[in-house]
Amino acid sequence: MTVTYTAAVASSSIGCFLKLLFRWRGSLYKLLWREFLLFTIAYYTLSILYRFALNDTARMIAKYCQEFGNLIPLAFVLGFYVSVVVARWWEQFNKIPWPDRMALFVTAHVHGHDERARLMRRTMMRYLCLAFVITMHSISPGVKKRFPTFTHMTQAGFMLPNEQKVIEDIKTPHNKYFVPLVWVTSLVTRARKEQKIKDDFAVKTLTDEINAYRGCLGGLFNFDWISIPLVYTQVVTWAAYTFFFSCLMGRQFVDAGKTEDVFIPVFTFLQFFFYMGWLKVAECMVNPFGDDDDDFDINSVIDRNLQVSYLIVDEMHSELPELIKDQYWD
Amino acid sequence: MTVTYTAAVASSSIGCFLKLLFRWRGSLYKLLWREFLLFTIAYYTLSILYRFALNDTARMIAKYCQEFGNLIPLAFVLGFYVSVVVARWWEQFNKIPWPDRMALFVTAHVHGHDERARLMRRTMMRYLCLAFVITMHSISPGVKKRFPTFTHMTQAGFMLPNEQKVIEDIKTPHNKYFVPLVWVTSLVTRARKEQKIKDDFAVKTLTDEINAYRGCLGGLFNFDWISIPLVYTQVVTWAAYTFFFSCLMGRQFVDAGKTEDVFIPVFTFLQFFFYMGWLKVAECMVNPFGDDDDDFDINSVIDRNLQVSYLIVDEMHSELPELIKDQYWD
Amino acid sequence: MTVTYTAAVASSSIGCFLKLLFRWRGSLYKLLWREFLLFTIAYYTLSILYRFALNDTARMIAKYCQEFGNLIPLAFVLGFYVSVVVARWWEQFNKIPWPDRMALFVTAHVHGHDERARLMRRTMMRYLCLAFVITMHSISPGVKKRFPTFTHMTQAGFMLPNEQKVIEDIKTPHNKYFVPLVWVTSLVTRARKEQKIKDDFAVKTLTDEINAYRGCLGGLFNFDWISIPLVYTQVVTWAAYTFFFSCLMGRQFVDAGKTEDVFIPVFTFLQFFFYMGWLKVAECMVNPFGDDDDDFDINSVIDRNLQVSYLIVDEMHSELPELIKDQYWD
Amino acid sequence: MTVTYTAAVASSSIGCFLKLLFRWRGSLYKLLWREFLLFTIAYYTLSILYRFALNDTARMIAKYCQEFGNLIPLAFVLGFYVSVVVARWWEQFNKIPWPDRMALFVTAHVHGHDERARLMRRTMMRYLCLAFVITMHSISPGVKKRFPTFTHMTQAGFMLPNEQKVIEDIKTPHNKYFVPLVWVTSLVTRARKEQKIKDDFAVKTLTDEINAYRGCLGGLFNFDWISIPLVYTQVVTWAAYTFFFSCLMGRQFVDAGKTEDVFIPVFTFLQFFFYMGWLKVAECMVNPFGDDDDDFDINSVIDRNLQVSYLIVDEMHSELPELIKDQYWD
Amino acid sequence: MTVTYTAAVASSSIGCFLKLLFRWRGSLYKLLWREFLLFTIAYYTLSILYRFALNDTARMIAKYCQEFGNLIPLAFVLGFYVSVVVARWWEQFNKIPWPDRMALFVTAHVHGHDERARLMRRTMMRYLCLAFVITMHSISPGVKKRFPTFTHMTQAGFMLPNEQKVIEDIKTPHNKYFVPLVWVTSLVTRARKEQKIKDDFAVKTLTDEINAYRGCLGGLFNFDWISIPLVYTQVVTWAAYTFFFSCLMGRQFVDAGKTEDVFIPVFTFLQFFFYMGWLKVAECMVNPFGDDDDDFDINSVIDRNLQVSYLIVDEMHSELPELIKDQYWD
Repeated sequence: MTVTYTAAVASSSIGCFLKLLFRWRGSLYKLLWREFLLFTIAYYTLSILYRFALNDTARMIAKYCQEFGNLIPLAFVLGFYVSVVVARWWEQFNKIPWPDRMALFVTAHVHGHDERARLMRRTMMRYLCLAFVITMHSISPGVKKRFPTFTHMTQAGFMLPNEQKVIEDIKTPHNKYFVPLVWVTSLVTRARKEQKIKDDFAVKTLTDEINAYRGCLGGLFNFDWISIPLVYTQVVTWAAYTFFFSCLMGRQFVDAGKTEDVFIPVFTFLQFFFYMGWLKVAECMVNPFGDDDDDFDINSVIDRNLQVSYLIVDEMHSELPELIKDQYWD
Repeated sequence: MTVTYTAAVASSSIGCFLKLLFRWRGSLYKLLWREFLLFTIAYYTLSILYRFALNDTARMIAKYCQEFGNLIPLAFVLGFYVSVVVARWWEQFNKIPWPDRMALFVTAHVHGHDERARLMRRTMMRYLCLAFVITMHSISPGVKKRFPTFTHMTQAGFMLPNEQKVIEDIKTPHNKYFVPLVWVTSLVTRARKEQKIKDDFAVKTLTDEINAYRGCLGGLFNFDWISIPLVYTQVVTWAAYTFFFSCLMGRQFVDAGKTEDVFIPVFTFLQFFFYMGWLKVAECMVNPFGDDDDDFDINSVIDRNLQVSYLIVDEMHSELPELIKDQYWD
Repeated sequence: MTVTYTAAVASSSIGCFLKLLFRWRGSLYKLLWREFLLFTIAYYTLSILYRFALNDTARMIAKYCQEFGNLIPLAFVLGFYVSVVVARWWEQFNKIPWPDRMALFVTAHVHGHDERARLMRRTMMRYLCLAFVITMHSISPGVKKRFPTFTHMTQAGFMLPNEQKVIEDIKTPHNKYFVPLVWVTSLVTRARKEQKIKDDFAVKTLTDEINAYRGCLGGLFNFDWISIPLVYTQVVTWAAYTFFFSCLMGRQFVDAGKTEDVFIPVFTFLQFFFYMGWLKVAECMVNPFGDDDDDFDINSVIDRNLQVSYLIVDEMHSELPELIKDQYWD
Repeated sequence: MTVTYTAAVASSSIGCFLKLLFRWRGSLYKLLWREFLLFTIAYYTLSILYRFALNDTARMIAKYCQEFGNLIPLAFVLGFYVSVVVARWWEQFNKIPWPDRMALFVTAHVHGHDERARLMRRTMMRYLCLAFVITMHSISPGVKKRFPTFTHMTQAGFMLPNEQKVIEDIKTPHNKYFVPLVWVTSLVTRARKEQKIKDDFAVKTLTDEINAYRGCLGGLFNFDWISIPLVYTQVVTWAAYTFFFSCLMGRQFVDAGKTEDVFIPVFTFLQFFFYMGWLKVAECMVNPFGDDDDDFDINSVIDRNLQVSYLIVDEMHSELPELIKDQYWD
Repeated sequence: MTVTYTAAVASSSIGCFLKLLFRWRGSLYKLLWREFLLFTIAYYTLSILYRFALNDTARMIAKYCQEFGNLIPLAFVLGFYVSVVVARWWEQFNKIPWPDRMALFVTAHVHGHDERARLMRRTMMRYLCLAFVITMHSISPGVKKRFPTFTHMTQAGFMLPNEQKVIEDIKTPHNKYFVPLVWVTSLVTRARKEQKIKDDFAVKTLTDEINAYRGCLGGLFNFDWISIPLVYTQVVTWAAYTFFFSCLMGRQFVDAGKTEDVFIPVFTFLQFFFYMGWLKVAECMVNPFGDDDDDFDINSVIDRNLQVSYLIVDEMHSELPELIKDQYWD
């Protein structure tokens, strides 16, 4: 669903980023308010316990927490971890394949205005889009919800019933995303035989492009399969939650003489927002195909791809405006 | 509009970067003076309140701010965030496509000195430039201002009226930047049929290049569509503004005995310039197609591209100086 | 065997990463419990010694450890080192070659439904898979265990006995992974001669692809051959163990007046988990082809590759669903 | 002029890097001595003022500087900024195009030993070198000094007078570096027509290479045009100079009781060398085509390129040593 | 000679990295023991001076060193510098060209079993290997020692006497590594003329590959020519040595009351090992073609390349095992 705000910060005027703080969709507050509520409740529960049942052991624990709570360099480990996550997030986005490239090649190289040629061009593009749908079906929960089975893809027009039968008859324990790509390849070979494609160069161009498309889909699978090692994620999570656990204790009002008695520990709360927000950045970006407000809106990409593909290879095929001299001509 | 200063720092002489501090266009001061004014006013207003209405609660709040104001590692999060922004900024610049490549290919492969051949070469290049204009129209406010509608592009010579009609008749909810690219592809196919292009290699070279060009434009759209997740930007902004809010309170003169009474808190102001400046770096670079002094000057790129394209494929086409022996010959 | 958890964190709901803390396979706890046990035993042994045989020298050592134990910026060096390791880890994963690309090219370019053509297509793919097995045999202990000798590869169907004889007869001190790749190249040349491959383009496409595949295998060898310089790894290890050695001493209860007597030093233990966990991240990722829970599951990749290759180039070869008009036709 | 010292640190023996400290060319000292002199003078001037005219206000200012002088995380911002600068510096170096690639292609594909063929080969290479000279002319002050006008390039043999006339007659406000590249392209087309180039593949190879060469030159222009945003450079410079300004005050001997009276503040001076040196790294690398000792020596690259180009395409053309069996034959 | 330890850390068992601490070759200890000895001697000499000739000035200097010794963020600058060095180190390794690629292309495209064809194939590969030897001769001291002159290369079989004569007769002040590459190109052209190479595609494939090979060699030269700017290396070295100089003074036992009198300053020594070790990492990796234990073992690469090249293009040429049905056939 993708929160786009670039246009709002086009010029760096006064309080440029400041106005972004008042957004709700995809915001820190929307992501954090439940955790913050829990933290606040826990803090004040403890606070009451302290004030009414304060003994020396409790005071000692509080002081111990205060002293040692900063032993873990949380900023450091979050900084490095989020760097890794951001890099993977953008790499994943770049692995989303766009069929526009193939559409341009198809319209350039698969000639003919008869029905057979049109059918070939449309089918090629449809197979590419289908391969993308099958891939995302096993990666993105949103796509899975929209197309729970092959039948739903058939209903939505990405597959035809006879194709569905063929793909279901293939016996393999592995994901079948490559099947439509094999079909396009065969279709290219057949189009060459039927002289819809005029030369061998075009065959090379088209099969290269199919393979590049396959590479993108394979890349998406790899990102889904190989997560950042669990132990790294655990170390970071561990550090963050430990830190706030020690804050719960250590930021209480303990010693009448030394610290002020602050009823609303503003800065502890701000710190919570800051560090937890940073962790939330990682949580949002670690799986960019999920349901978060900020995750890539794959379902609209799927629709757009089929529409634009058909537009390029069919409706616009060989429709060229008349050539007229431009206004700078001589 | 792009502030270029590389030539001014060609050699690392004394005070090399120092002289850059005295520039106004695109400078820290130009970007920050309004925020700085507000900060100063707020500081002195509070200062007066303190001095004339100082009670124990106020003193306590001030001390609390002083103590906890450094809890948030602002430098850290700014460092990592700006790294991400700078990397995206440069990637975006590299996605700006230059038609020079295509122009060289067109002049090499589309032969003939008759009017039809000239028309084809010029039209190919014009379509590429048009695709760039349509793309930037929906990304850059500056380009949008210059070309609010297709009609303005036609008036500026990037489109002809008959082309405008065709493009307006295409019904699609998606951006139409790819339409001129489909036209170039068709034009290449037609030129091959009319034997202006002599061999199938050249067709492959040209369609590959058109697709590479399309890839750049698609890349620009992607950067516009997928911002850095809002939550990351909010965390950073939150941290920066919180920090200065706590400075406003905590850097006041509170305790006669311990801190000096500084009427002009130079270092607090310097710190403001430093941290806010760092945040401004991010604000400027997060959308490099905006209106800032330092943003890429796309309108001049658009003009340059059309002029140089025409120059290469038309005026200079096949104009080769006579071959004469150079001075090192034997 | 690869711990995949991306699906579990698809949406950043409350406690998103928190639930990952309760996993065992590939977890911090599974990797660290032995070290932690040793650390605890050492801590309490020392603790008892202190309490019952505390003299001034011991106290002095403890205070010295306390003071100087934070001299080494462990977080810093771990952060930079783990960055390097993570980058190499992902680069290594990307070097794993997938034969799917080649399979698509083979099914597109090696024509014919007779037995000879089928044999050629299957053999080409088998050789590619064999090259991967031979490569991983000398890199991954898991693959080595499964295929200790060439004979085991023959039994598993990656080689035929006559091929095994040929490869064993080649006298070279260097790794023989390139031998099957030379065979595929020869096979492509022969297929061209026998007109199974119709044009020279296809030969170029196929040999380029074989070479890209070889490049990946060569890359895997290089990562195995060139480790991160030993001295870097030693510096990091040295820093981590030294740090905890000084903690053992310096975190003891020493001075009755100044520190609290904490029987269970929770934060020292948490710190151990944190820093040691970070080091474990490096240990896990430095050799991603090892036996750790989180290492790449190469044996299943090997099986998958052969199965999918055969499926694409043989079972599915030229099997194309009948072309029917899709539901958006006109 | 490029300071090369890799050979001096080939093996990491004792004091390996230490001996680099005794170099003068391109060194810290050569770059910094003027700034250091100014700093020293300012320090001692202030020092004398303090000692002889010390009053309470001065002492207060000094203490204030001492306290707040470390508020700005100079190391942090320098570290991140220099990272960006170093990455750009190396990217720029990699954009310097080497004509060796083209020379190999020209000698392979432009056949014939007659004068016309020789002339074509030499002229192609000369045009490439010329394009590089024109590009660097507007980027590097050193090249501009050597070739202030086109006439100087003609005198140096990179252009012939008739070519100079053609290039000067082209009316365009934009840089003309692409003109010689259009000529090479035309020359390739002509050579194909005259059958000096035997096949269309070779034409593709050559035009692709010309375009790759053009891409490098365009890249160099882009780096020159788009500097690191001024505001980033200003923030860093601001931070560094502010820091040393506060050092000037804050490191003075103020309070007889608390700090020692150090007449030569060795560590303040060392700190100056360190931080200012780090800033100088950025100043040197931000424009690697300038006049610094460590900048790329473009003038010698220009000469080398023409000489090696002529050597490959002319003197060595088709000169192949007789084929004789090597010593490992059978 | 390359210290490979990846196999030893295949699984992250207990004390995984710990066992790496007990290695000598390429280790911290081997690299550091001389510096450490000097440091220890200096420390104890100073220590004795202090104890027996302790006066107030000495005590003041010691306290001054103690206070200001931590002013320089050594960890920071080392972290960033080593990042740059590590990136360059790996880039350099990736520039080492492997002739295996070319060997596969040569065996695929240069046909014929007669002596002339064999001679051509072998000579092509030998020239590539020769170009690598000439390149490394001027980069790596180890290769220079093995082949001090062209005559040694001839004796080792990389050149023949007639070739040596030709190469020595070429008059150019520049490195002659490109000469054998020009020869291969000519050889390819000749092989095409003699119909050993059947089509123009193959010529393109082979010349492209020669040029990619040349690009790698050129890249190696560039890394050798353009060092990390001297001033950066000096800043880092300066920071490290200054730090330890201040430690020598500041870590002495000064004040009987406040610090403990530690006869063996374990942590100062550990710190020395840590920081100096980090600097040694940079020293080792800055020139990976030197004589360090951990430097790339180029001499064995040279031998391996020639052997494997001959094996692929000559012994194995067109030797294909008989095609037999595999065990999963139907």
